[in-house]
Amino acid sequence: MRFVEAFLGTSLLAAGTVLSLGLGVGAQTRPGPAPEGPLELAANLARLRDAALTSDYAWRQVAYLTQNIGPRLAGSPQAEAAVNYVAEELRRLGLEVTLQKVMVPHWVRGEEKAELTIYPGHVEGTVQKIVLTALGNSAATPAEGIAAEVVVVNDLDELAALGRDKIAGRIVLFNVKFDQRMAEAGRGAAAYSQAVAYRRRGPQEAARLGAAAALIRSIGGANYRLPHTGAGPRAGIPSAAVTAEDAELLAHLTQQGRVVMHLVLTPQTLPDVESYNVIADLKGSENPDEIVIVSGHLDSWDLGTGAIDNAAGVAVAMQAAQLCKQLGLTPRRTLRVIAWMNEENGSSGNRKYVEEYGSALPKHVGAIESDLGAGHPLGINGIFSPSAKASLQQVTSVLAPIGATLVENTGDAPADVKPMAAHGVPVFGLTQDERTYFSFHHTAADTLDKINPHELAENAAVMAVLGFALADMPHSLRQ
Amino acid sequence: MRFVEAFLGTSLLAAGTVLSLGLGVGAQTRPGPAPEGPLELAANLARLRDAALTSDYAWRQVAYLTQNIGPRLAGSPQAEAAVNYVAEELRRLGLEVTLQKVMVPHWVRGEEKAELTIYPGHVEGTVQKIVLTALGNSAATPAEGIAAEVVVVNDLDELAALGRDKIAGRIVLFNVKFDQRMAEAGRGAAAYSQAVAYRRRGPQEAARLGAAAALIRSIGGANYRLPHTGAGPRAGIPSAAVTAEDAELLAHLTQQGRVVMHLVLTPQTLPDVESYNVIADLKGSENPDEIVIVSGHLDSWDLGTGAIDNAAGVAVAMQAAQLCKQLGLTPRRTLRVIAWMNEENGSSGNRKYVEEYGSALPKHVGAIESDLGAGHPLGINGIFSPSAKASLQQVTSVLAPIGATLVENTGDAPADVKPMAAHGVPVFGLTQDERTYFSFHHTAADTLDKINPHELAENAAVMAVLGFALADMPHSLRQ
Repeated sequence: MRFVEAFLGTSLLAAGTVLSLGLGVGAQTRPGPAPEGPLELAANLARLRDAALTSDYAWRQVAYLTQNIGPRLAGSPQAEAAVNYVAEELRRLGLEVTLQKVMVPHWVRGEEKAELTIYPGHVEGTVQKIVLTALGNSAATPAEGIAAEVVVVNDLDELAALGRDKIAGRIVLFNVKFDQRMAEAGRGAAAYSQAVAYRRRGPQEAARLGAAAALIRSIGGANYRLPHTGAGPRAGIPSAAVTAEDAELLAHLTQQGRVVMHLVLTPQTLPDVESYNVIADLKGSENPDEIVIVSGHLDSWDLGTGAIDNAAGVAVAMQAAQLCKQLGLTPRRTLRVIAWMNEENGSSGNRKYVEEYGSALPKHVGAIESDLGAGHPLGINGIFSPSAKASLQQVTSVLAPIGATLVENTGDAPADVKPMAAHGVPVFGLTQDERTYFSFHHTAADTLDKINPHELAENAAVMAVLGFALADMPHSLRQ
Repeated sequence: MRFVEAFLGTSLLAAGTVLSLGLGVGAQTRPGPAPEGPLELAANLARLRDAALTSDYAWRQVAYLTQNIGPRLAGSPQAEAAVNYVAEELRRLGLEVTLQKVMVPHWVRGEEKAELTIYPGHVEGTVQKIVLTALGNSAATPAEGIAAEVVVVNDLDELAALGRDKIAGRIVLFNVKFDQRMAEAGRGAAAYSQAVAYRRRGPQEAARLGAAAALIRSIGGANYRLPHTGAGPRAGIPSAAVTAEDAELLAHLTQQGRVVMHLVLTPQTLPDVESYNVIADLKGSENPDEIVIVSGHLDSWDLGTGAIDNAAGVAVAMQAAQLCKQLGLTPRRTLRVIAWMNEENGSSGNRKYVEEYGSALPKHVGAIESDLGAGHPLGINGIFSPSAKASLQQVTSVLAPIGATLVENTGDAPADVKPMAAHGVPVFGLTQDERTYFSFHHTAADTLDKINPHELAENAAVMAVLGFALADMPHSLRQ
């Protein structure tokens, strides 16, 4: 109740006309001198919201990051270009920019080719092409590839039951289906969590039994013969994701008889290289040492251009600061924009931050990351104290015109901010329409056109309103 | 009225109970001795319909053609394997099989790679990858590729306005959008027809002005970074289809400044090779020299496995004969199953047929082809005399339980049977739910899983009922 009392208080709660001014559906910012105190905060949140909805700033950032820079896998020249671009843009806005050095893996995709050379019905001179893509951290085959029999299992128990005799020297496919109906019902992230265990563990379990290579069924909902990459373990064997269609083909053919695959994967794992988290502060007017983080991750997978994952997140975080500048708003506490590096294949960015800023974490009063695309926002979620919920509901009430009113303590948060929860920092993600996110996630089709400009603006509004509220409320959420 | 009178006649039209036996919704075949004459035909059509709906025969044929054989581009070993498989299967059913020799083009896809090396915002050491696939008949670049500036035009007028000065030596993109809303509204084929002109004409128009290569925007509705191939002209320059996403990227970047693409396409056009139409007759009991064709095309593009385009069509044509055998039905006229070769890139199969069977065409009383996938059937369409419509409506009334009751003289028909219309042969296609067909058409995602087994069985019912009706009605549709 701390925030509610301080922010809106009994006097304000009685002032229905004032509330409706700032918080009502379709409310516009009233011209004239700004109100003061809690009243001022409520009005400023409404101004941020309305300014976000009429701005194309976030869209232009996503367009630049995806179309003019492109895929931004950690360690790549594009990731470096993106660091420079975001740093320069945030400096241009007048923020105090720090490049925090982070050593990142440098894994580079190579040739990727797979075809079946023996299978039931096979006719001399023909092959069946298999569409796949290497998992991050995959080892390479020899340049000429390997040829091995394919074994399909539906889970780790089946793998164990087959044992070393039937696995050693073979190519193992974990044919675990992404639950598309769950995704379509609005629970894409939950469906993803269920299937992703096989990407994270499958290859090394197969390697322990001597497998020549490990394949997973792509984790994602769209059946357009699209392989979905993602980080695999450093299992020491070639590891790749086949498309849903190719997983079905392999399951079908191996049921009929012997199937041999010729597999070429030539990624390289180069020495770690230096990269950066981009950290940009809009210094607080009263308590500059208290920090609220608004963030997304700047690195992306290399197949698409990383629009939904996660140029969108970086862009809405940048816009939170841009809108403050545009409206001439300076919060009490410091609003810190972070564009994280290496979320996708190592998390070295967020680890380095906690390591280097550990002593400052008690003064971090909130950390937000958007990392579930740019679908219509429904509210906020995260890890925070039960007593914070009512305060947060006051904040999201400003977002009622957008429909982003849910406040849920899910016990989970996006990857770059979640580790701070262990240090007592309230951490947040945006709750979004995630029905189609995993159709494009980690594929070549993660491109600018997947983002609806209006929905992106809605997300910018949520990030700006939540970020500014946490930074400007009289008593912090940690107090 | 010829057929109506002969088939159902006044006596039968009065026999309400008999009609409802064979034609009612959910009607089942009555056990016991078969009725005779028009009554027998009505009952037999209902038996064919019901048997089709409970059979997986067509599905098994599609599965074999796609998964055990694979892509079947004319001239490929897989196309040859498919000819042998279909011929053997139709012989096994007891049909009289002829392999009609056809010379076909032998175009073989090679390496396909494109990347932007110069573009606004470009940072040294980076490229933007462009996803594309060569059009059939495309010429090759040198093995090391070409590098040229990209010019984007929205139509042929824009191309002409730019003229040789601005086109010569450049890579021209025809950025013509497939009308996805038209497709989603159920008119996919109409949307396709509008856009395909640029695939057929664009490359040679660009070549005439000295272009180094021609690109089209993929013709299809799904935005999963899927390139859609298809036959282009023999324009003498490299020609390819970029994905919708990449067309947008190129349009966006060329608006900002100079864009240079490095393009590698190394397809080969080899000498024509011998292939075959598979022709299999179920000889008619009374007028074996009168012919009704049920057909699909056996060749497919090489990216996917040709499930919807067009293993499905071949399979339902095969099933029309299979069901006759299963039910012990022999029509008065000959039911001829044809699996056409080379529909996709030359049409040499259907041309050869008309050439060699020209003198027999006056005895062809109908030719049906299914070549719009395997979506839920809504009826039949084609080119036939106005007087035939009522007769055809009597046939499709048997299909009312499926919902395939539309009879439309569209003046158009599938590519392999349409040329026979000029010889007075009534020609037909199946009217289908085509909302998603062009999402997968000519892409790597044209695979078995895109077919709903129940809907495929519905299509088999339509093909069997229409084929058998045309072959067994007392007076032919041409009389």
